[in-house]
Amino acid sequence: MGTPFSPVYIERVLDPSYRNWKSLFFDASVKVHRAHLCMLAERGIVPGKIAARIKKGIEELDKLEMPEHLPGWRDKAAGAERVEDLYFLYEKALGERIGHENAAWLHTARSRNDMDGTIFRMVLKAMLLDLSCHLLEVCASLLVRCGKGENELIVLYTHGQPANPSTTAHYLSALLLELLDDCARLLAAIDTVDSCLMGACAITGTGFDIDRERVAELLGFGGVITNTYEAICSSHWLEEPAQALQSLMGDIGRFAADLLHKASCEVGLYFFPDGLVQVSSIMPQKRNPVIIEHLRIQAGSVANACAGIGVIFRNVPFQDVNENADAPVCSFLNTIGQTNSVLDLLAETADKMEADEERAAQICSEFGVTTTELADTMVRDFGMGFRAAHGIAAAFARSGGKVTILREAFLKTTGKSLSWSDTEIEEVLSPWRFIRARKTLGGPAPEGMRPVYRRVDIIIKSLNERLAIFSSRQSETEAKLEAAWRQI
Amino acid sequence: MGTPFSPVYIERVLDPSYRNWKSLFFDASVKVHRAHLCMLAERGIVPGKIAARIKKGIEELDKLEMPEHLPGWRDKAAGAERVEDLYFLYEKALGERIGHENAAWLHTARSRNDMDGTIFRMVLKAMLLDLSCHLLEVCASLLVRCGKGENELIVLYTHGQPANPSTTAHYLSALLLELLDDCARLLAAIDTVDSCLMGACAITGTGFDIDRERVAELLGFGGVITNTYEAICSSHWLEEPAQALQSLMGDIGRFAADLLHKASCEVGLYFFPDGLVQVSSIMPQKRNPVIIEHLRIQAGSVANACAGIGVIFRNVPFQDVNENADAPVCSFLNTIGQTNSVLDLLAETADKMEADEERAAQICSEFGVTTTELADTMVRDFGMGFRAAHGIAAAFARSGGKVTILREAFLKTTGKSLSWSDTEIEEVLSPWRFIRARKTLGGPAPEGMRPVYRRVDIIIKSLNERLAIFSSRQSETEAKLEAAWRQI
Amino acid sequence: MGTPFSPVYIERVLDPSYRNWKSLFFDASVKVHRAHLCMLAERGIVPGKIAARIKKGIEELDKLEMPEHLPGWRDKAAGAERVEDLYFLYEKALGERIGHENAAWLHTARSRNDMDGTIFRMVLKAMLLDLSCHLLEVCASLLVRCGKGENELIVLYTHGQPANPSTTAHYLSALLLELLDDCARLLAAIDTVDSCLMGACAITGTGFDIDRERVAELLGFGGVITNTYEAICSSHWLEEPAQALQSLMGDIGRFAADLLHKASCEVGLYFFPDGLVQVSSIMPQKRNPVIIEHLRIQAGSVANACAGIGVIFRNVPFQDVNENADAPVCSFLNTIGQTNSVLDLLAETADKMEADEERAAQICSEFGVTTTELADTMVRDFGMGFRAAHGIAAAFARSGGKVTILREAFLKTTGKSLSWSDTEIEEVLSPWRFIRARKTLGGPAPEGMRPVYRRVDIIIKSLNERLAIFSSRQSETEAKLEAAWRQI
Amino acid sequence: MGTPFSPVYIERVLDPSYRNWKSLFFDASVKVHRAHLCMLAERGIVPGKIAARIKKGIEELDKLEMPEHLPGWRDKAAGAERVEDLYFLYEKALGERIGHENAAWLHTARSRNDMDGTIFRMVLKAMLLDLSCHLLEVCASLLVRCGKGENELIVLYTHGQPANPSTTAHYLSALLLELLDDCARLLAAIDTVDSCLMGACAITGTGFDIDRERVAELLGFGGVITNTYEAICSSHWLEEPAQALQSLMGDIGRFAADLLHKASCEVGLYFFPDGLVQVSSIMPQKRNPVIIEHLRIQAGSVANACAGIGVIFRNVPFQDVNENADAPVCSFLNTIGQTNSVLDLLAETADKMEADEERAAQICSEFGVTTTELADTMVRDFGMGFRAAHGIAAAFARSGGKVTILREAFLKTTGKSLSWSDTEIEEVLSPWRFIRARKTLGGPAPEGMRPVYRRVDIIIKSLNERLAIFSSRQSETEAKLEAAWRQI
Repeated sequence: MGTPFSPVYIERVLDPSYRNWKSLFFDASVKVHRAHLCMLAERGIVPGKIAARIKKGIEELDKLEMPEHLPGWRDKAAGAERVEDLYFLYEKALGERIGHENAAWLHTARSRNDMDGTIFRMVLKAMLLDLSCHLLEVCASLLVRCGKGENELIVLYTHGQPANPSTTAHYLSALLLELLDDCARLLAAIDTVDSCLMGACAITGTGFDIDRERVAELLGFGGVITNTYEAICSSHWLEEPAQALQSLMGDIGRFAADLLHKASCEVGLYFFPDGLVQVSSIMPQKRNPVIIEHLRIQAGSVANACAGIGVIFRNVPFQDVNENADAPVCSFLNTIGQTNSVLDLLAETADKMEADEERAAQICSEFGVTTTELADTMVRDFGMGFRAAHGIAAAFARSGGKVTILREAFLKTTGKSLSWSDTEIEEVLSPWRFIRARKTLGGPAPEGMRPVYRRVDIIIKSLNERLAIFSSRQSETEAKLEAAWRQI
Repeated sequence: MGTPFSPVYIERVLDPSYRNWKSLFFDASVKVHRAHLCMLAERGIVPGKIAARIKKGIEELDKLEMPEHLPGWRDKAAGAERVEDLYFLYEKALGERIGHENAAWLHTARSRNDMDGTIFRMVLKAMLLDLSCHLLEVCASLLVRCGKGENELIVLYTHGQPANPSTTAHYLSALLLELLDDCARLLAAIDTVDSCLMGACAITGTGFDIDRERVAELLGFGGVITNTYEAICSSHWLEEPAQALQSLMGDIGRFAADLLHKASCEVGLYFFPDGLVQVSSIMPQKRNPVIIEHLRIQAGSVANACAGIGVIFRNVPFQDVNENADAPVCSFLNTIGQTNSVLDLLAETADKMEADEERAAQICSEFGVTTTELADTMVRDFGMGFRAAHGIAAAFARSGGKVTILREAFLKTTGKSLSWSDTEIEEVLSPWRFIRARKTLGGPAPEGMRPVYRRVDIIIKSLNERLAIFSSRQSETEAKLEAAWRQI
Repeated sequence: MGTPFSPVYIERVLDPSYRNWKSLFFDASVKVHRAHLCMLAERGIVPGKIAARIKKGIEELDKLEMPEHLPGWRDKAAGAERVEDLYFLYEKALGERIGHENAAWLHTARSRNDMDGTIFRMVLKAMLLDLSCHLLEVCASLLVRCGKGENELIVLYTHGQPANPSTTAHYLSALLLELLDDCARLLAAIDTVDSCLMGACAITGTGFDIDRERVAELLGFGGVITNTYEAICSSHWLEEPAQALQSLMGDIGRFAADLLHKASCEVGLYFFPDGLVQVSSIMPQKRNPVIIEHLRIQAGSVANACAGIGVIFRNVPFQDVNENADAPVCSFLNTIGQTNSVLDLLAETADKMEADEERAAQICSEFGVTTTELADTMVRDFGMGFRAAHGIAAAFARSGGKVTILREAFLKTTGKSLSWSDTEIEEVLSPWRFIRARKTLGGPAPEGMRPVYRRVDIIIKSLNERLAIFSSRQSETEAKLEAAWRQI
Repeated sequence: MGTPFSPVYIERVLDPSYRNWKSLFFDASVKVHRAHLCMLAERGIVPGKIAARIKKGIEELDKLEMPEHLPGWRDKAAGAERVEDLYFLYEKALGERIGHENAAWLHTARSRNDMDGTIFRMVLKAMLLDLSCHLLEVCASLLVRCGKGENELIVLYTHGQPANPSTTAHYLSALLLELLDDCARLLAAIDTVDSCLMGACAITGTGFDIDRERVAELLGFGGVITNTYEAICSSHWLEEPAQALQSLMGDIGRFAADLLHKASCEVGLYFFPDGLVQVSSIMPQKRNPVIIEHLRIQAGSVANACAGIGVIFRNVPFQDVNENADAPVCSFLNTIGQTNSVLDLLAETADKMEADEERAAQICSEFGVTTTELADTMVRDFGMGFRAAHGIAAAFARSGGKVTILREAFLKTTGKSLSWSDTEIEEVLSPWRFIRARKTLGGPAPEGMRPVYRRVDIIIKSLNERLAIFSSRQSETEAKLEAAWRQI
């Protein structure tokens, strides 16, 4: 064991890995030491006296403000002894305090395989829970924005063409419901992360009479991964949250693409305040709400990183592999950090977008957006067929909204004069009348929006409850681990 | 409207689309006509008499064995009239039977947007449910294979190195649990598909007093998508099942990569019968179980197609877009078909792989695979520390398994002679003893496997129950639609 | 060898593969037989008499209109003999005519590995050359469209904001140059495809004294892949053309996204004739130039398929693998077919888009698009700094184009009155004056466009020359093979 | 302009962007200032006196060790003034030294659009050139390894089955040629990066009579992008190098997958020294050459990042977009850094892998790897058909190499006794005889390897020449810029 590692291997693999461990995983690793020791002591696998000494050693190390005070990783001595990673350094430091043979007892019935996977999941779970809370906050702010936008007239599009008048509330609540669906999937993915590997050891468990569920409990997991081989091999704990984030980013990216259109000069349905607008160094007239473009780019960048998680496992043997280890995991944690940036930009964008209702009304009238309702109203008021009504309305639309053409077409099709006055026609074509008529479940009229809000409330409540369970389990866990620790 | 479509547009867009509709979506579209008509009649939106005539027209068309007998799509007459798609052709055929104005009533309070999305979801749901059943059958056959493999000795690997002896049952049940997890996600995705769009109309609903939930019920959906704009824009119904399939394919591809190693000449843990082996045209000694390679390739190909579903929506406006239309949908349906091929190859592979236990025993002994247990047993039998025991076992392993070295190392480390006889040592190193000792929850010993089987049973039961709900709803739906139809 | 193949394996692997071979690769496979036989005979590896008999047998089979008349693949007899694929069927058919031992001489010094790769490359090369010709035709039609668009006023955008007036010629020639760059990469990729594997045999060549370069010559390849192991393992021949197509599709997709904006109702810079417009079944006013959306979707779909080519080789051993075999190859050939559809839609779109110059002028004036030139002209005419001029122009732009504000700002900044008359100011702000001033190399003025056209011409000429080389080599090859065949 | 930016926008967009600019792009931006000023002065666009003052200002700023001494970006004053980015900060600092109006002259006839793109390309080109040099060094070290491996016996595989004996030289030179092909593509991609945008200004050039080619020359570019709109919109400069790297990583990943198999315990063709091997914390017998796994993971990670470059532009309008700006560019620069890590690991792996020839010989004999040559030799020595010889050899292979079976089969097939002595048979089956017989162009015999080395030499020479051109242009450019600067 005297051969030192290859310098290239140290620079390109061991060093980056050590930095990852030091900055991200040390605290969780100490919790794993503690919980494992409690279980070993409870089951009598480690003699009580030795357990007590290990306990004391760990507490001493705690006071040293680890991991900064770990014995030198890169100093010659360490290099010469080939201490591979933070785990071995910790064991060594412990051994120097309580004797190496005593320290070694701590490693009974466990392996770096099950420890690493457990630690990664603890850290990932915590970050994903934080992200979920952040997402729910953004959803809550979107809901507030919907409330403000109930009487903001806008136009909605199909295939890039103005189609129907609607409201900011109707528009943004559609996005909100999509995001809540993504959030539900994210929480389902956290359930997949929330399983403990401890006791799987290298891959087949151990001959010691351990209690896997007890360790899981002391670490705050929802349960264990039953099959020990599955525990070590599975990639689901990385892929499933990555897929949920990919969906989330996809929705946000699509919203950005849509909003870029709605906020463009010529469309002008939404306006942004100066605080979000950049200028041109050469074109004095330019006024770019570049935040939306950055929202698209950042969402796209996170989505790509998430898509890569699945691909990195492509054709990798169904074994314990380093794709499950610190480099890919840290890269994913970093991606989660970027997701928070995307959420901040989204919240800011939704909060600051101001509807220009005058422009919306203008588009409605210019492009005959309400002629659908004209046709429908003729069907309802005159008992005529939809096809005939549609034909009359189309003639009117093609004329650019000339009332005489409408009357002519009506006469020609039905043989009767259109009984509405010009004012009545204008009223029929009014965007707000159009909206108020859309009481359909889920439509933009207040009656239509009521079930939308109800559904939003139900989902948010349910998601918050799920988050609350994690949070209360977290505090119980700390108490349990503390109690068990005192028993040693 | 007399201008004919551009020939390029017909050849490259309209024709392929028409073929898709004719072969895949016609039946579902008629169901939508029926359910929508029932609701319109029930709500009094279409006068009873007209509803009855439409009903009669639809029934007449049914007898014509549509869609083959639809009026010509590509004949000159049709071209001249610019009938865009199957929907308009059907309306035209209906109109020819019952009068065009009567036929037009059928289109009250609906749009091709909500109809198309509804129809696509009906067909996709049915294919995904079939696929889920297929997957559960494959899982059931894997469970049978596990049962046969409880006493088949194999070796499991970490990072490509032989690590622990185990059994085929332990190995395959790990894969089985992963696949069941994928299946659960697939069913969750089907829940997302299982929502009805009808009544969303173009995007904001309608001014008619429709009942969206009634149409959903008559079409066998679990519910409606609340917000009408979300209904038309969402991509989740395609992305979520695609992601579930991508995970499934990822697991199968990893299994193939692992099995290719285990079935290779030099490893030789599994053997395949001649029925699955191809020969070389030039190398007489070659014997390739190429099925595993094809499993990898087909799984990879399906995974790629599924990954593309998410990407095709990238930066596409959050609007009604044709990414939600027949071309991408049909491409996904085709991918689901390929998934069935992958599942068949997987089932055949698992069924036919034969463990070579002699070779497994040889590997165990040649590479010191059971020395972990040697170390652990010393800890338990002699109360020594894990580190000391690990050191002795490592010396033994490095010696290539020389008992004298083991005794020497033991003496040197502990100061005592090793009290085991040579036979006892052999027994300690026996792979089956290793396995039998691994009673850990989820380990390969019978005691460890019991909770594995229990978990498999619970999950399979729960998945079957979920599938049964879909299936019983399906038959109730037919009855309900039939009853409603009779009322018109 | 009597064991029949597993029915699952036949259905899911052998049958689809056989269908691929029959429909796509048979003709090329016969050419390989011929060229290989010529070389074997020329080198004296196969005795002249036997070569003559094989020649006769091949010619007899040619007359039978193969592959339809191949002995039955799925009939019991064939199954019982386990004829794996079309290759073995052909050898068998040949053997039935000329004796099996004579037929077997044909397989001297070759393997299915080198034959398959050679055949796939022949077919792929032919399809890619056809595609390149198609792409160059589309480029030629774009060039024609540029010519027509030299005097069409449009507006160009940065970050979705109107930035500068320009012309259709300037706009489309930018796209054209990108497509020509893609085409150059496609031809470079064809060079990679254009190498012969024959003689690599299974992987290390052969002990027979063959002439690899002669076979390559008789099959029309540019050369051989030198290292025989590389020949069998490389994935570059699939990946490189796939990447070139991915770039091409990326450019077309970006153009579609841009044109969707320019052709939208509110922007209205381009208009499409009725032949490319679909209507709404519910909204009479809608007029969707859906061809652009289909262009986006089809380009995206092809890009995804191409991206998958690289991923399917991910972590696949650097060996002869079936990722290089018929299933992935056929899937790629199919993708190339779809590319032709994309190119047709692109050509049709570019051909039919009609600039609305009035609308362009309106946008220029409404959004102060020419104020950059106002600032620049003040710099040039009054010798003032760019910063001061920019400040004055910005004040003018913010005022919505009020001349009094312009004069005030000028006075305030410079201390002098602005000497231009109102007419002169209008002239300075004229879009066409803006364009004519942009004589910069590559700008929209005629002087700026001249080097653009020159560059287009040079590239098209060079690409056509490269294609001509392939085409003339093709006819020479046929003559050479014919001559060599006669010598046998 | 007094409104401060939104704090969210500052934190999530402006700050990260400013950090990117400061750390990566400042030096290149000063070069652009200098070259642009030279051209403006040469063309008389900026009056000589003003040009001289700007020159002096730039030189003063140079001495301040910018960008650290730039006026505060985040201090209140700066925030209040909304200085968006490093560019404006620099202009401001310059203005404070030489007067703001003088400083503003520097911005005549340019925009941040053309400056940014030019700067990004300068930095990217430099990093890609460094990477190419690194790759060529690794290729050179692989060539050395090939030289050492000419007499190292190994086994090559097809479809995971041992197929032919060969040498390390033959094996690694196949990889080497693939890497050289990737390197050639990388250099072609650098040609695409190597074009200057300056003078494209915002998008249509300028009314000033500038000389675009002169600026390109002073900045060391190979030329300009002709069409000014293409210059600003194109994504090829990012996508093409990303695709080349993706291919490179794909090849390395495939090599890693193959080597993991060859270096596995059971195969054992290659062995790694202790400096590259990690141990197990629980399994004393384990000896993992984990470097290969890390090579796979890092290569996969880089490949994913590169694939993302293409996807991030998906459906992004063909306009000037921020996907071409600092965030994606920096992310790509970071990826290039990781590529250097991959190359280091590859070089170390290839350098340290030690062939175990004894094991290779054992595999050859155990799995009948040389029976192809047995068949071929019978064809050559006894003038028999390939089919008959193949049948005899197959019988021998199936027997596990029993000579008696061989003699029996020969007698039965040919009716004659096999005239070879047992020693002669052994010699025919010798792996080294097999190799020496493979003199085929590109085969493993010295005669076969000669053209391989020749080809490697030609390609390396040609690539080095291309790199030398860049390097000499670089020094000429510095001299030219220096000379032009002195003229101001």
